[in-house]
Amino acid sequence: MAATKPAVGITMGDPSGIGPEIAAKTLAEKEIYDLCNPVVVGDIGAIREGIRIACVDLRAISIADVSDAKYEFGVIDVLNQDSVDNQRLEYGKVSAMTGEAAFKAIRKVIELAMDKKIDATVTGPINKAAINEAGHHFSGHTEIYAHFTNTKNYAMLLIYDDLRVIHVTTHVSLRQACDLVKQERIVRVIELADYACRRLGIDKPRIGVAGLNPHSSDSGLFGDEEEKEITPAIEEAVKKGILASGPIPADTLFSKARGGRYDICVAMYHDQGHIPLKLVGFTWDQQKQKWDSVNGVNITLGLPIIRTSVDHGTAFDIAGKGHAKPDSLIQAIKYGVMLATD
Amino acid sequence: MAATKPAVGITMGDPSGIGPEIAAKTLAEKEIYDLCNPVVVGDIGAIREGIRIACVDLRAISIADVSDAKYEFGVIDVLNQDSVDNQRLEYGKVSAMTGEAAFKAIRKVIELAMDKKIDATVTGPINKAAINEAGHHFSGHTEIYAHFTNTKNYAMLLIYDDLRVIHVTTHVSLRQACDLVKQERIVRVIELADYACRRLGIDKPRIGVAGLNPHSSDSGLFGDEEEKEITPAIEEAVKKGILASGPIPADTLFSKARGGRYDICVAMYHDQGHIPLKLVGFTWDQQKQKWDSVNGVNITLGLPIIRTSVDHGTAFDIAGKGHAKPDSLIQAIKYGVMLATD
Repeated sequence: MAATKPAVGITMGDPSGIGPEIAAKTLAEKEIYDLCNPVVVGDIGAIREGIRIACVDLRAISIADVSDAKYEFGVIDVLNQDSVDNQRLEYGKVSAMTGEAAFKAIRKVIELAMDKKIDATVTGPINKAAINEAGHHFSGHTEIYAHFTNTKNYAMLLIYDDLRVIHVTTHVSLRQACDLVKQERIVRVIELADYACRRLGIDKPRIGVAGLNPHSSDSGLFGDEEEKEITPAIEEAVKKGILASGPIPADTLFSKARGGRYDICVAMYHDQGHIPLKLVGFTWDQQKQKWDSVNGVNITLGLPIIRTSVDHGTAFDIAGKGHAKPDSLIQAIKYGVMLATD
Repeated sequence: MAATKPAVGITMGDPSGIGPEIAAKTLAEKEIYDLCNPVVVGDIGAIREGIRIACVDLRAISIADVSDAKYEFGVIDVLNQDSVDNQRLEYGKVSAMTGEAAFKAIRKVIELAMDKKIDATVTGPINKAAINEAGHHFSGHTEIYAHFTNTKNYAMLLIYDDLRVIHVTTHVSLRQACDLVKQERIVRVIELADYACRRLGIDKPRIGVAGLNPHSSDSGLFGDEEEKEITPAIEEAVKKGILASGPIPADTLFSKARGGRYDICVAMYHDQGHIPLKLVGFTWDQQKQKWDSVNGVNITLGLPIIRTSVDHGTAFDIAGKGHAKPDSLIQAIKYGVMLATD
């Protein structure tokens, strides 16, 4: 039985954020060990500090190779990179040291997955400025993964509850997003949406494709991307046997999907997909002036390896205080396991 | 007491849609008559048909002038335009006759408000194709109101529950929306947001202004509209004593507003504001394959008269069946009353 559980590599994220704390809280959940064989990639000292802050009854041991992992509930196996000087670690601060430590963990977990030593990778939150300060000029995890796995055609999938949204474009200006809404790319993203849903156990995924313009351009009154790019892409996908429909005006697509009309939505740009996802997944506590919950999972599709991630940042404002919630990381691990399981 | 209640003109909307039915259901609510003096503008036959479909215990009487209205609960005062041949009326069909009838009602209600014979106008749903078939080339209510009140600088405010969203741009392509995100326009919309909230009883409105690009451009990495237009506009508004802040990344702004962090959000484009509003206001019934509820109110700000509206369309698919819900129209009337009351 144990041998059939997928091995999951979890990066600690930026150690000056909430990454080590939520990793500790997550691995204090017995169900995680029931589902998979987890190993944390990062710095043993930072993880021990995370255990202390999380106030959980766990130990961490340093291992040099994944094959040394025991996967025993109660003892976190840490593939130790000895990357943090805990004397110098300050919570909530951008530094080259923590940026480098976060980056090393990502590189290592990618390498392990490419070498098939682990079955899925799950990433904790990083700080882009710290990564850049350490001399690595990437705009985020996804770009690091794409680079080191030599992937050109990938897409970001966000999931909260029954709402699934995949993006045709992400980290570009809104003007550039309009330029990148092209038939070939849309077809590829629809295919990835179909693939992902099937991997997640949805037999015949119903895919709702958003329009780019308001009212999906209202028959060409405002913009022509629907007619020129989106409709032909949907037709091409349908010809391939995929249950894609649209373009659906974006202001009703997500309400319909939430009600069960679609299994997955294809968003044309970052905020078109992120606004609805975070509106349902994130709740703000006005009294405490902080997020009460930040649920949701971020999955990169199209890579040769599996990558899921938390859907929130390093939360520098609450780092080191013990208040961080592990919900998103727990979900990310569960999705990693689902994608890794035949 | 009765004399102090505002007079509210309600258009019947397109008579082949759900407009007359929801007007009848709305005016079957005693509280509407407690709040205001309502008069329906449209065709007496269409309203009587609406009463029949709605199965409500009401009568409708035809009046020739607002001064003839009795405002008695149980009897709908209809400023009759004799605009529909009920023999020819077909539910769920676009026609020049119903488009013309809908258009005439709007023109009349605007005229009444401009002449100060009524204190607020509330519009039922129309069909744009029918309006155009009748030879009136407008893209919607808002443009008709702007034209006949000679207004250049107006803005669309959507409200559902505690979520209020005002738009810098609306019915233009996404590319054109990017071009129209300009400091002067944003300042004007922030001022309208501040004004509207105060009229609605919010003393010191906290206004959250969205960025245009993902992550509000991430310090200029994706786009420069935040730096060039939005931030200067916010600074200008703050100098005028308005509690505006931002630019706030659009994917967290609405979650924060929903949690109570902002009283109103300024959206840069149609879907940026409409996606979150309809995600919380609209619920889809997958079993019945129709909307279970379509809540929300649409208010045009910047006009010399008050105009509120339902936030949904003519619902041709369920017109004439008695299933339409009046919730949005009831809310629209309540907001009309609030805006009309000192």
